[in-house]
Amino acid sequence: MLVRRDKLLTKPVAVSEYLFRRLYEIGIRSVHGLPGDFNLVALDYLPKVGLRWVGSVNELNAAYAADGYARINGISALVTTFGVGELSALNGIAGAFSEHVPVVHIVGAPSTTSQRNGLLLHHTLGNGDFNVFADMSSQISCDMARLDKPADIADQIDRVLRTCWVRSRPVYIMLPSDMAEREIEGARLDTPLDLSEPANEPEREKYVVDVVLKYLHAAKSPVILVDACAIRHRVLNEVHDLIEKTQIPVFVTPMGKGAVNEDHPAYGGVYAGLGSEPAVAAQVESADLVLTIGALKSDFNTGGFSYRTSQLEAIDLHSTHCTVRYSEYPGVSMRGILRQLTERVNLSPPARLRSPEIASSGEGEIITQAFFWPRISDYLKQDDIVVTETGTANFGIWETKFPRGVTGVTQILWGSIGWSVGAAQGAALAAKDMGLDRRTILFVGDGSFQLTAQEVTTMIRHNLKITIFLIYNEGFTIERFIHGMDAEYNDITRWQYTEVPAVFGGPKVRKFVVKTRSELENLLVDNEFNNAGGLQFVELWMPKKDAPRALKITAEIAAKNNAKMID
Amino acid sequence: MLVRRDKLLTKPVAVSEYLFRRLYEIGIRSVHGLPGDFNLVALDYLPKVGLRWVGSVNELNAAYAADGYARINGISALVTTFGVGELSALNGIAGAFSEHVPVVHIVGAPSTTSQRNGLLLHHTLGNGDFNVFADMSSQISCDMARLDKPADIADQIDRVLRTCWVRSRPVYIMLPSDMAEREIEGARLDTPLDLSEPANEPEREKYVVDVVLKYLHAAKSPVILVDACAIRHRVLNEVHDLIEKTQIPVFVTPMGKGAVNEDHPAYGGVYAGLGSEPAVAAQVESADLVLTIGALKSDFNTGGFSYRTSQLEAIDLHSTHCTVRYSEYPGVSMRGILRQLTERVNLSPPARLRSPEIASSGEGEIITQAFFWPRISDYLKQDDIVVTETGTANFGIWETKFPRGVTGVTQILWGSIGWSVGAAQGAALAAKDMGLDRRTILFVGDGSFQLTAQEVTTMIRHNLKITIFLIYNEGFTIERFIHGMDAEYNDITRWQYTEVPAVFGGPKVRKFVVKTRSELENLLVDNEFNNAGGLQFVELWMPKKDAPRALKITAEIAAKNNAKMID
Repeated sequence: MLVRRDKLLTKPVAVSEYLFRRLYEIGIRSVHGLPGDFNLVALDYLPKVGLRWVGSVNELNAAYAADGYARINGISALVTTFGVGELSALNGIAGAFSEHVPVVHIVGAPSTTSQRNGLLLHHTLGNGDFNVFADMSSQISCDMARLDKPADIADQIDRVLRTCWVRSRPVYIMLPSDMAEREIEGARLDTPLDLSEPANEPEREKYVVDVVLKYLHAAKSPVILVDACAIRHRVLNEVHDLIEKTQIPVFVTPMGKGAVNEDHPAYGGVYAGLGSEPAVAAQVESADLVLTIGALKSDFNTGGFSYRTSQLEAIDLHSTHCTVRYSEYPGVSMRGILRQLTERVNLSPPARLRSPEIASSGEGEIITQAFFWPRISDYLKQDDIVVTETGTANFGIWETKFPRGVTGVTQILWGSIGWSVGAAQGAALAAKDMGLDRRTILFVGDGSFQLTAQEVTTMIRHNLKITIFLIYNEGFTIERFIHGMDAEYNDITRWQYTEVPAVFGGPKVRKFVVKTRSELENLLVDNEFNNAGGLQFVELWMPKKDAPRALKITAEIAAKNNAKMID
Repeated sequence: MLVRRDKLLTKPVAVSEYLFRRLYEIGIRSVHGLPGDFNLVALDYLPKVGLRWVGSVNELNAAYAADGYARINGISALVTTFGVGELSALNGIAGAFSEHVPVVHIVGAPSTTSQRNGLLLHHTLGNGDFNVFADMSSQISCDMARLDKPADIADQIDRVLRTCWVRSRPVYIMLPSDMAEREIEGARLDTPLDLSEPANEPEREKYVVDVVLKYLHAAKSPVILVDACAIRHRVLNEVHDLIEKTQIPVFVTPMGKGAVNEDHPAYGGVYAGLGSEPAVAAQVESADLVLTIGALKSDFNTGGFSYRTSQLEAIDLHSTHCTVRYSEYPGVSMRGILRQLTERVNLSPPARLRSPEIASSGEGEIITQAFFWPRISDYLKQDDIVVTETGTANFGIWETKFPRGVTGVTQILWGSIGWSVGAAQGAALAAKDMGLDRRTILFVGDGSFQLTAQEVTTMIRHNLKITIFLIYNEGFTIERFIHGMDAEYNDITRWQYTEVPAVFGGPKVRKFVVKTRSELENLLVDNEFNNAGGLQFVELWMPKKDAPRALKITAEIAAKNNAKMID
């Protein structure tokens, strides 16, 4: 049977090789994950197709890292093993789903024979149910494939990879161990995967553009607001073309931070309702039209739902639909709309915007949040990758001005603490894989760092160019501001943070303890520090009960939401 | 509305207090978990009822620790936050479900108002679906409660706690943030929870006992085989009574290791098919009746399904049913059966068993697996808690003889690497909470340790009496024996393992590096080492490509299973 089938194949190729060659083709160069007995045979095929095995330290970290890799590289892949491995990764994949990040999650599973016979295998619930984990993942995947029928496998792989890219969300692939080396037809590898997004129906697109233009041309003080999905659905070139042609004042949401070149004269700052700088809020909220691109209006992205803008003055462009005032236009994607808008718009130049300069504030030698975040604007360089952790960093970074080309990497909607350590590893590895000499700079609180600290070992293993600023402020500051300022449950054990890299395999990693402004100033101008080629670690002391202004406002609103009673 | 309802309450009590007082009542003294904004208000009630907050380092570790705590204490509790927290814990909870460990998983969730309004909150998928994570957990919980209707809450709490105990598996409780302080009737707290197991129907029970006795009295060479569910469903006293009265030779499975007093003259060793010591296999497989108590016949618990016993000579007692040869008896639980059996059985004394002494083997100074595991039989003391990690330790420990009262803690069915570090923390904390001066001894490989290493900080924080033997053998040895002996994906980065406790907050933790047999011998007889009151850490060098005999056999069978092709 096997022989007959093989004879029919013109270019036989093992399933694992087929899958991995497709991953390579779509731009993946490193694959995150952990070995497990159900995926080992497949892993043998990685070097054969030129893919690097990252060898992460645990699956959750690996999933976070895959998320970070995809945010820089465009897409990423993660390999885990059935049950134990995939469930450990679930929180990371859920974050990627929530935040529209395309991660290909490949799970090595028991053989189709074992599954059909319902064997009581290790890594199962002991109930013969081999679908239960895939069912869980189906909730956080935009497509799935069980590679259990050789004749369908190539089709399935091609379909889910395309869906992953186009919908920019995770997909799940179950690869049974007996399928890893199964031969399938490889001839179709000669035809590249089609990753093109479906174009809008021309008549429908023109109709929507007409409507948008009507309001845009009538507006006296329009603004553009760029949000997360503009990044994730890859329309930043289109956004910049529109800004360039119209010079309309442009703002970003917290999740959109980094999407727009902040050196551009039309750039106005971060808008998040009550969490905004007052000058920013005034400009956005006095506009007579807000054109939002790729909105994701979550609580922490909107200053706790505190926008003071009117739906009657709102145009929202999304990847799957558009909304103008209260009219919905399903089935039109923003890319086509943006291109047509840029081509057809004809505005007289608006008043020149003056982007508010946020100055460092405070006095003395203590490094406060209000001092720190504006201060590091100068430290950042063009094309840096700036990763900020949920907590003070996520809110503080609003006050940092990014040089041109800086990518902000942050997880504001999902907000899983510890994520940034894995994400920084993945982001830096992606830059390396892309042959780019970008620095990755991570800002992470001590509480969050403890959850995922061992990912530092992977940074060392792959000699990644990362500078970690560990904010030493004794615990979960964002939680303190929501509830329990002095509660024991918001405290953590003090680690010898600067010794972490040495213990995890990097005895030569440069480390710094910065307790005062003077020490910080000295470090930030140090040439060697600014141009380090590998990992370096800064323990940065900040006061325990200090937080960025925007965090305090958002936390207060969150606490009220949590307490709201039913009748 | 609120006032009227409160007036009806004779002893008003906040939902959080009600829940936590019930946890205290059923024997829980420490609660594992991490703070998150949706659970903070509830956490304020822990100290009020005398519960200790553990403050774990991440949710997966916390879930592993809760698992370990329950294995010693009988039941445990874990508090996480919605989405991010609970999903990180999922693998740990799935392990507890798979292995029949009762863990109460309490998830702080957004307020009922936020849920009803479908708010786009942080820690959600951004789709307004607040049931998706509970649905995932429903697959790995034996009961669930959403505490969203005040009038039902006390009922729900009492029901799920009872189910958790009786079925010995995890339950899931969703506690919305606005319900944490909601007042409900507290008068029912005066009535203790009913945790009694339902008795068997007497006629049905007698019928089954008659059948079992018929075969037992007819047998010439019966043996008893004790497995995991005898431990989890708490029938070890009944098992020992039966052994005491009959003196029938008794064996344990790998998952049953520690269930039976190994000093008892009837004790014969560990049976796992081809993985057994030949003398053990010979005795079990030549028996004309095998009475199995609480079987969980997974691959790694049966030497890869290599039992050579006949169903025609098998009696299986379970918590929910019994099987005699090919006859099924649903609805009878083993506890009643065992008690009746012990009362009515009348056997002439069997031939005295000679339990095989497994000797340390090998020569020279290298510490081999074959040398190590039998060697530590003498090091162990009465009532020790011995935690073994998936990998070499899980198989090696078969060759160690446990003194009386030693509890073996191992996760053979679920087999999630890294589990043992959290489990050891939980087990040691349980012993401490119970006021017992037991040592907890952890054997964990370097590869596994890296996944969950930061749980060492919690051991230090609570001053737990744990000795860690870190088996330094350069990577994933069990995987090497299944596939990829020299593959890069089975390698790990070398850490400075002995520095880990100092970095994680324990500069005074005693640490040892043991590279030779002589060094090991010196350590094992050291008085201070044997009687340490807190954490101590041993880096134990063993050869990279060495494994216990039973592991090699099981790995070979697993590799064959993985490769089995469909037609």
